[in-house]
Amino acid sequence: MTKKIKLGAFLPGGGQHIAAWRHPEAPADGATSFEFHRKLAQTAERGLFDAYFLADNLSVGLGGREGGNAKIAGFEPVTLFAALAPLTTHLGFIATASTTYEEPYTLARKFASLDLLSNGRAGWNVVTSAGDETARNFNRETQPAHAERYERAREHVETVKALWDSWEDDAFIRDKTTGRFFDAARVHDVNHRGKHFSVKGPLNVPRPIQGHPVVVQAGQSEDGRRLAAATAEVIFTAHQNLSSAQEFYRDIKARVRRAGRNPEHVLIMPGVAPFVGRTEEEARSKYERLNDLIVPEDGVALLNGLTGGTLDLTGYPLDGPLPVSQETEGMKSRQALIRKIADEHGFTIRQLYQWIATARGHYTVVGSVEQVADQLEEWFRNEAADGFNILPPWLPGALDDFVDLVIPELQRRGLFRTAYEGRTLRENLGLPRPENPWTQSRGAVQAAE
Amino acid sequence: MTKKIKLGAFLPGGGQHIAAWRHPEAPADGATSFEFHRKLAQTAERGLFDAYFLADNLSVGLGGREGGNAKIAGFEPVTLFAALAPLTTHLGFIATASTTYEEPYTLARKFASLDLLSNGRAGWNVVTSAGDETARNFNRETQPAHAERYERAREHVETVKALWDSWEDDAFIRDKTTGRFFDAARVHDVNHRGKHFSVKGPLNVPRPIQGHPVVVQAGQSEDGRRLAAATAEVIFTAHQNLSSAQEFYRDIKARVRRAGRNPEHVLIMPGVAPFVGRTEEEARSKYERLNDLIVPEDGVALLNGLTGGTLDLTGYPLDGPLPVSQETEGMKSRQALIRKIADEHGFTIRQLYQWIATARGHYTVVGSVEQVADQLEEWFRNEAADGFNILPPWLPGALDDFVDLVIPELQRRGLFRTAYEGRTLRENLGLPRPENPWTQSRGAVQAAE
Repeated sequence: MTKKIKLGAFLPGGGQHIAAWRHPEAPADGATSFEFHRKLAQTAERGLFDAYFLADNLSVGLGGREGGNAKIAGFEPVTLFAALAPLTTHLGFIATASTTYEEPYTLARKFASLDLLSNGRAGWNVVTSAGDETARNFNRETQPAHAERYERAREHVETVKALWDSWEDDAFIRDKTTGRFFDAARVHDVNHRGKHFSVKGPLNVPRPIQGHPVVVQAGQSEDGRRLAAATAEVIFTAHQNLSSAQEFYRDIKARVRRAGRNPEHVLIMPGVAPFVGRTEEEARSKYERLNDLIVPEDGVALLNGLTGGTLDLTGYPLDGPLPVSQETEGMKSRQALIRKIADEHGFTIRQLYQWIATARGHYTVVGSVEQVADQLEEWFRNEAADGFNILPPWLPGALDDFVDLVIPELQRRGLFRTAYEGRTLRENLGLPRPENPWTQSRGAVQAAE
Repeated sequence: MTKKIKLGAFLPGGGQHIAAWRHPEAPADGATSFEFHRKLAQTAERGLFDAYFLADNLSVGLGGREGGNAKIAGFEPVTLFAALAPLTTHLGFIATASTTYEEPYTLARKFASLDLLSNGRAGWNVVTSAGDETARNFNRETQPAHAERYERAREHVETVKALWDSWEDDAFIRDKTTGRFFDAARVHDVNHRGKHFSVKGPLNVPRPIQGHPVVVQAGQSEDGRRLAAATAEVIFTAHQNLSSAQEFYRDIKARVRRAGRNPEHVLIMPGVAPFVGRTEEEARSKYERLNDLIVPEDGVALLNGLTGGTLDLTGYPLDGPLPVSQETEGMKSRQALIRKIADEHGFTIRQLYQWIATARGHYTVVGSVEQVADQLEEWFRNEAADGFNILPPWLPGALDDFVDLVIPELQRRGLFRTAYEGRTLRENLGLPRPENPWTQSRGAVQAAE
């Protein structure tokens, strides 16, 4: 079997593009409609996607508070995915959750529960939740510094993994005759005492079906890359062109190798926002139609929201350039990325938000079925991507286009599965099930005897 | 329409009785089987129960760590209920969550999400999570003092309610033509600054379908009663006899009245563990059969676990009396209740755990269909109960018995519904939808103009 493209689907009910909710075929209440999310999950499963992915924010900040922002309110991702899991059978669910504002015990527990009830289809996208607006919902005035957030994240992830391992896979006996339900020698305290957390354990949920839910990361800063290389199994990333994606791909794979991990077990999946038509012209008209729906104040608010409130453009002329940067402790990687796009294209503020509105810094592909498939194939074959996180700009139309038009073309080229390979998210992604260190050390002792 | 009995179903997959998992017809892995919980939910809905209720614990402590404890691991309740919601249409879901170890923003968000995706069927059982074993999973050595936990709980509940109210019901416009998605004048910061929390808001989930998920409480201590009278709409409680239940009922209703609330909008639902037979003899043999399955060490561990680890009976003879109490900061009400039972009956340790194993301090009814219905009717007609939280001692058998035998008898007597009255949990319980204070004050201003 040759290597195949892996695919995530980023499907917030309100759509990816800032004006997606205004699209004639989009439900205006998609962001808060459970029925619509159910339909999206079922379409993604029909398209044989590996996973449904949702970002998350712990405040109304994302995209600004202006009246046109359809992303201002929605579902908490783990709760939503739990509800979608029994309505699907193979699709994975990658939920975003914060290491800065959640406790390891609580987080380990809800992801272990999601993995258990979905029969091994859970993934955790680890984020550190930038922005003072979020901090103010959690007893703080300002967010912790960037480096401190990442230091805490590393300790958090290790603690969560230790909690998932606190039960060995064979700890449960459940012998009705003897009355022994579990083997106390196969359940272990965690006894973590670190700089940020102190957690005794064990967890009160069995070891997840997958061993660990799949650990996902998306940081692009130096701190983010370091965390990803040390802990992540899937990395979402945003690049505007092949060479930038290749630089990132090679850098991460080298870091992973240096960390003593197998680079094949860390999948790099850049985001792609596809506008697909039967012809290039049809695709281009879909692209323009959506951009025409952006309300200018919403566009400006989007730029600020995307950078965690560190890029306030109020008062600057829309048809002038981006003002000079101030150093902040906000979302460093996002602000740098946005400035790079503006510089490369010589964009005004208006042109910039139109560009960003589509894909928020991810790669926008506008073209015929063959052209879109060509782009994906080029990135996949040239060390830029192990797969892609597909961000349909509006819903359900752009997802339907991808599933009905692009997926069959990728299959024809032998680049994508024609049926799910496995039962769990991990099996479909081709990632190994983590061994339990407690079980491993018991095996080592027995082997030595 | 005359007043009807309200019914909750307490259905942990492992059963209520400590030896429930050893029952021949119980699945040994019920506690961690999603399919089994789905079956229980569907049976409860067939029985027209108001709600499925689950307790919760933030450590493996409950019931002890001995090898016979089937309750040592299970699902996180909100995650589980989210998955069950789309598989049912009328059944409510009351999940327990902690004010001591969760943040108001996170908690408000997940319950609002559960309410949204279930179309208004969520309830929150407010607990303060006793026990040092739990504290040690959350960066502490010992738990906060009893009074401090309750003080924090009160501030927590108020903050959560304010977050649920941060969006007015009609805040969403979603006008595709103008691009206005919401009315910024109808979304409000919370700006809470208290002793325990500081939360800016607004929440990033719309106001729940029910206004607020139904707020449930179960504290029986003085602090617990005060909190319940101030904030709860449903109160779960444990009583061994009619007069004790009446005392509690009258005390709470009087406190509610003094707090300026309508006593009819606070439902008191004692726990009842029913062993039902076609004859009394059949019921009694079901009772004895289950008690014969208890492993002694598990019985002793149960008593300690129930009191948050404050009743360590290791080394005391099983056929001797309960040793004298030490004052603790643990679960005051639970320890007092357990001692009272031992005193009243003159129980040895063994007799005590056998008694407790069945219902953990709740009322055990063993009898024919008519006898069980008589007991419920007596309590309901004599100011002891507005309804009951039914705790089937083993599953699925004792739930099936109740649904197939007792429910029809209660319906024949006109004491229980024959179809769901409403669409939401609140409507079925006969509780009003809370008004939004922001909308109310706007109405008052308009009326004055």
